[in-house]
Order: sequence, then structure tokens, then C-alpha cells
Amino acid sequence: MTGRLCGIGVGPGDPELLTLKAHRILTHAPVVAYPAPDDGPSFARSIVAGYLRPDQLEIPIVIPMRAERFPARAVYDRAAAEIGNHLRAGSDVCVLCEGDPFFYGSFMYLFERLAGRFATEIVPGVSSLTAAAAALKRPLAARNDVLAVVPAPRPDAEIGRVLDGSEAVAIVKVGRHLGRVRALIEAAGLLARAGYVERVGLASERVMPLAETTADRAPYFSIILVYKGAEGWINNLSVL
Amino acid sequence: MTGRLCGIGVGPGDPELLTLKAHRILTHAPVVAYPAPDDGPSFARSIVAGYLRPDQLEIPIVIPMRAERFPARAVYDRAAAEIGNHLRAGSDVCVLCEGDPFFYGSFMYLFERLAGRFATEIVPGVSSLTAAAAALKRPLAARNDVLAVVPAPRPDAEIGRVLDGSEAVAIVKVGRHLGRVRALIEAAGLLARAGYVERVGLASERVMPLAETTADRAPYFSIILVYKGAEGWINNLSVL
Repeated sequence: MTGRLCGIGVGPGDPELLTLKAHRILTHAPVVAYPAPDDGPSFARSIVAGYLRPDQLEIPIVIPMRAERFPARAVYDRAAAEIGNHLRAGSDVCVLCEGDPFFYGSFMYLFERLAGRFATEIVPGVSSLTAAAAALKRPLAARNDVLAVVPAPRPDAEIGRVLDGSEAVAIVKVGRHLGRVRALIEAAGLLARAGYVERVGLASERVMPLAETTADRAPYFSIILVYKGAEGWINNLSVL
Repeated sequence: MTGRLCGIGVGPGDPELLTLKAHRILTHAPVVAYPAPDDGPSFARSIVAGYLRPDQLEIPIVIPMRAERFPARAVYDRAAAEIGNHLRAGSDVCVLCEGDPFFYGSFMYLFERLAGRFATEIVPGVSSLTAAAAALKRPLAARNDVLAVVPAPRPDAEIGRVLDGSEAVAIVKVGRHLGRVRALIEAAGLLARAGYVERVGLASERVMPLAETTADRAPYFSIILVYKGAEGWINNLSVL
């Protein structure tokens, strides 16, 4: 019998934001795979480090951290082949996914290579989006709001259009686009309604009104939430 | 010392999708509050029923289930007063929130009434959105996609505009709008790219291509995900 491929969301950073299900699958898995940069430790692994055991086989999927954001097929071909060997041998393989497996994650590259041949399960996780709203202490979206999620690398005009057309906007992957996106939000007259969250759930977390940020660059995993609703308390970022 | 108000996301339905943190806070809370309809059991409570103890004091917040979707202030005024009494007496109060507390939830109505006077903590939860993507076994959003989340009660023209303007669209609160929204998606030429998920994570879960739904009404907590990306496997709903 072949093993099962499980993609588990490990949440945005706080190890306690794993679900009970992700924790159960992780602690029972003989093989654990995770993305890792070629120049440092794996963030996904660091989140669950306290739950891992020495008898678990670990497979780091080393992603070249070049300018190019969506790395070469060869990396995932190789990782899928290695994981496939374990699955064929009957071992379940648990793949760690920062946040949620299918929310802007790299797990899809493994899934598309393996799902046709092996049993799969996806365990959804807490996304950094709702964690950022919790940190800012205001809703991500309410009532019948349209919420738009837009990655910061998108062009100015598209970000402007999204800011105009939705009651709630989340800008993800802010990183080196912080200064540019802040200027776009200010131009749209929404600076006072924007909150900024960096490294949510980690010891180094920073939460503040966007207007108080001064840098032009931010960590890759930083988020801006804009809320246009009329409610005073929602827009009152002074609670931070 | 006054108690602390904790809003905890209990996830979309599967009790194992509580986070370790939500589970810890819930099992230590002397007082547990939750929304409940006036004509049946509380969904939020049903998710965590197996974790509750008889010595925990329960406060159902009974919401009149009329046509009106955003119920009268009086209900939340009363609930906030009752919860405030416990907080003032020094008891922590845990409020159960379906999915995530700040993602289209009613917790905001309690939060805005109590946060000024008491310490608060929000524990983000797994939203039904990523759970639906996991059930459909395809990404909610990938790479630099714009994802739009739109509640089904919004007018036709607005839903049509969102379908045109985003690579990924999630339609929430489908309920009695299923037939209308299906027609809008078909008119946009996207029916083959739409998946439907009902009661995600429950024993009665249904997951299927939207094209295979026939009813004009669905349960309130049903979701449609549309993905316009070019990748063949993402759009292949035949895996279901």
C-alpha cells in the first residue's frame, strides 16, 4: 500500500496556531518535507520545531532565493521524485506549508506533481491575513463587504483600482514594495485607514498604523490591511 | 482584576480544525459565550461540544433569525452587558466564533462594545474559504493572483464586475442566491472553472463542480470558488 501525501497549514508563525489536526498528522508522520531557502533556515520548519522528533525523516526542499519569485520546475520535479519514493514505499509524507497550503503557497507545485498517483489530504491552516486582522484588532471584512487580496508586486494601476473598488483590501507580499504601496494608499486618501503588520505571531512582530511606517522596504511576509467602512471603531488604529 | 475577553475562531466545522491555542483558551475559560439562532442549536457551540465541561458557564447570544441579516443593536447591547458583568467580576470570557472572529463574523459587535473597557485577545481561526479550497483540492489563490471575496447578496452587476476583474473569486454566503450566482458565473463564461462546497468539514459536506449543482438555494454557509488561471490541473474539477 502506498503512503498518503498530506499538505498541512502550520499557520502564520505562532506554533500554537497549528490546528489540532495538523499537529496530529505532523506528530504521526514518518517523513516531513518543507520549503527552505538556500541561504538560511526553513521558516515553516521553525514554526513546528518544538513538535518534531529525531526519528522523523526530514526532507528540506531547497528553493533558490533569486530575484525570480517562482523557482524553476527542476526543484519541484526533484522534490516530488524524492517524496514519491517514500509514498511508494508506503510511508505517509507530511509537507509543511506556511499559513495555509492553498493560499499563495508553494505546496501546489508538489500537489500537481503527485496528486494523480497518490492519496492526498489538505489540512487548511490559519492564514496570515486573518492573523493580521487579529493583531490589528479590527475586522478583515464585515457584513457584505467585498474583500480584495492583492499581492504588492502588481502594477500601480491595478493596486489603485482595487483600492477604489472594494470596501476592504489586504495587500500581501509587501516586502520591498512598502514605500510604493504606502504612496498609492496615500494617493487614494486611505492612509489613515490602513494598518501594517510584520512577522505576525512571532516575537519580532510589529503592528502599527501604516502612516507610522517610515521604511521603504519590509520583510517579505508583511501585510497591509485597508478598511473603508464607516464605523469609527474599525478605523481607530490608536488602540495599537 | 478584571477578566479578559477572548474571541476565538473555532474553524469552519471540523472540531479538529481548532488551533492548539483556541483549544487551550476554551478549555481554561470559566465562561463561554456563543451566537445561537432563536430556532435551533448554536453551530459554533456544536463544533466544540466535545471540548466543553459541565462546570463552564455558557452564555448563548440569541440572534433573531429574521430576513434582516444584521440584527438589532439590543441583542448585542444585552450580551455585552452580561459578558461585561463576568469580566468585571474577574472571570475570563471566551467567545466562540465560527471560522475566524474577524472574517465576516458577528464577534465585532461584541468587541466594539467591550474592547474599550477590558483586555482583549483575538485568536484567528481557519476560515471556510481555505477549508473550501482544501476540499476542492485546488488553490484559492496562487502566485500574484488578485483574489476577490464577494458575498452573494451583492447586486448582479457588482458580482459580474468582480468575476471580470480578478484571477480568483470566492463567493460567500451563497445560501438562497445559488441559482442567481450560478447564472452570473455561467454568463461570464466561467462555469467550468467554478467549484461548490457546502457544509465544509461536516459529515454532511458536499463538494462538486458548480455545474453539477441543480438547486436554486443552498445552505447559508456554502461557498463557490472560481479560478481563472491557465493551469490545467487547477481547473480540473474531475478529481472530485
